[in-house]
Amino acid sequence: MSLSREDRLLQWLREQLHREGSDRMGDDAALLPKAETAITVDHQIAGVHFPADIDPRVVAQRLLAVNLSDLAAMGAEPRYAFLALSSPPDHDIKSFLRDLLKACRESGVELAGGDLARGPILSATLTLVGGKVPGGKWLRRGAGQPGDRLWLGSPVGQSALGRHLLAGDADFQKSRIRLPPSLASNPRLAAAARRAIRSHLFPSPQIDLGRWLARRRRAAAIDVSDGLSLDLHRLCRDSGVGARLYAEKLPVTPAFLNLCARLQLKPLELMLSGGEDYCLLFSLPASLHPPESFGCTRVGELTRKRSILLVDNGQTGPLAAQGWDHLQSSD
Amino acid sequence: MSLSREDRLLQWLREQLHREGSDRMGDDAALLPKAETAITVDHQIAGVHFPADIDPRVVAQRLLAVNLSDLAAMGAEPRYAFLALSSPPDHDIKSFLRDLLKACRESGVELAGGDLARGPILSATLTLVGGKVPGGKWLRRGAGQPGDRLWLGSPVGQSALGRHLLAGDADFQKSRIRLPPSLASNPRLAAAARRAIRSHLFPSPQIDLGRWLARRRRAAAIDVSDGLSLDLHRLCRDSGVGARLYAEKLPVTPAFLNLCARLQLKPLELMLSGGEDYCLLFSLPASLHPPESFGCTRVGELTRKRSILLVDNGQTGPLAAQGWDHLQSSD
Repeated sequence: MSLSREDRLLQWLREQLHREGSDRMGDDAALLPKAETAITVDHQIAGVHFPADIDPRVVAQRLLAVNLSDLAAMGAEPRYAFLALSSPPDHDIKSFLRDLLKACRESGVELAGGDLARGPILSATLTLVGGKVPGGKWLRRGAGQPGDRLWLGSPVGQSALGRHLLAGDADFQKSRIRLPPSLASNPRLAAAARRAIRSHLFPSPQIDLGRWLARRRRAAAIDVSDGLSLDLHRLCRDSGVGARLYAEKLPVTPAFLNLCARLQLKPLELMLSGGEDYCLLFSLPASLHPPESFGCTRVGELTRKRSILLVDNGQTGPLAAQGWDHLQSSD
Repeated sequence: MSLSREDRLLQWLREQLHREGSDRMGDDAALLPKAETAITVDHQIAGVHFPADIDPRVVAQRLLAVNLSDLAAMGAEPRYAFLALSSPPDHDIKSFLRDLLKACRESGVELAGGDLARGPILSATLTLVGGKVPGGKWLRRGAGQPGDRLWLGSPVGQSALGRHLLAGDADFQKSRIRLPPSLASNPRLAAAARRAIRSHLFPSPQIDLGRWLARRRRAAAIDVSDGLSLDLHRLCRDSGVGARLYAEKLPVTPAFLNLCARLQLKPLELMLSGGEDYCLLFSLPASLHPPESFGCTRVGELTRKRSILLVDNGQTGPLAAQGWDHLQSSD
């Protein structure tokens, strides 16, 4: 029986999945067992979410990571993924799928369906289905209350710094970061630059932290994808509260500050509105503290008064909802 | 509180959804109630699945329809939709969303989440979640058995004819079909051309037929998206059977034949491998017949011998698995 190229590729993919014990692909839709589910969709488009000439290995990992981060913010257990991939004729789909399968495997996710097509640019959309954490409940943005402490799951601003470097003379090809001579010649700056670029290309979704939060009696969470200040505004809006954020509590390293200085970037601006950090911003009652091992930092508190304030250098003022606007060129 | 353009648009969308009683959007992922689910993903890309200059109203309707057709082929009840939309700055997202919401409403589907971005071309991915039909079971491609009759849910080939016309001098703008003078001047040909173009732009997914099939004791089904012959090969492969398809039983109208003749197209080729028909190809035990009201046609039978044969003009020969190969330019 002669098969189309698409069928041959899908057959190959099904064989890979069979080996992992999965057999959901190959019908018109995938069947999932009975469960409450959390579903999220994110896409990654060449030239929009990543440079068009980036090492293709990055795209699959990043695609999964940004979706996993959404599930982490819901306190969900990642389960099933669905891929819609459109790619130009010279794109190696098998290699992309291999990378995606590997990343899925590492996160306990089963690729359960998809749609492949040829298109003018690489564009990948992933739908991720999560289940409830045993003994936990869904984490919602709207669960924050006045007096709750505000926490950050990891430092922010690194990803934006990495994006800035990649938009300039830095590059990532064949799994290697290439820096411009001005940075490469200074070991400390070079190390900081590499860390920032890796943060940007390979986000670390905080699934374990989400699981822990889902088991607390009360927690609100959002993933910091569009910028700390914008996402804090969203959490406060849904919780019906205000917040006070302390600039001096935001975690930074001297290397990050030095690199910002060299590149003439404002570190606080990167941290507040750089975006694409993919860590969790969450609130907890004052009596609860996340385990040290997660490396979280207390950065503020939620307030009854609904204004959202930044305390910086002893001065308190309104915190603008600035960040990554996916539709910045729209009306 | 100042909001980003994206947040303002999402707020507008949530207001539209609230009016319809839906409140799933606005957190990091959508929460769905406990249920067995069928999930499918399809995308529509400008220049690939539709002409880049097509009336934007077409895209939203078509996007939903091709996904609904997958659920129809599973015998699933359509429930929730998730949209990933990337569009150029001059694209009217609100108008697109309005059209999508209208189409969703008409099919009982709730838009439950999504991801919006600006990108160089219009690209829309829809994930559709379906539940079980009450008293039914999932329809699978692999449920066919030797001796079962093979049925077609509606005529095929029209969509491919419509695509051919649109690739030529015909056009669809501002909700109107425009034909070249050579066709417009002949009322019968013009009517046939309009029907073909509408078939292509506005597929009619056979959800009701899928529901009916899901309640039978045995039925196999697939939606004819990539061409009758290719999709028949898929159904047979999964069922472990062969088939005999009778060319003379394929439903055609004189107008379709006349239009094919005028355009120097081979009608049988369009019917067998044109693709994008989005109707159901299904098999039933010989004792079962679909109700007349569905307008189905018996076109063949499944056989123990695993070859897939076409009976045409008294001659029997192998039916090639030809059709729409989404990766035709790949290796």
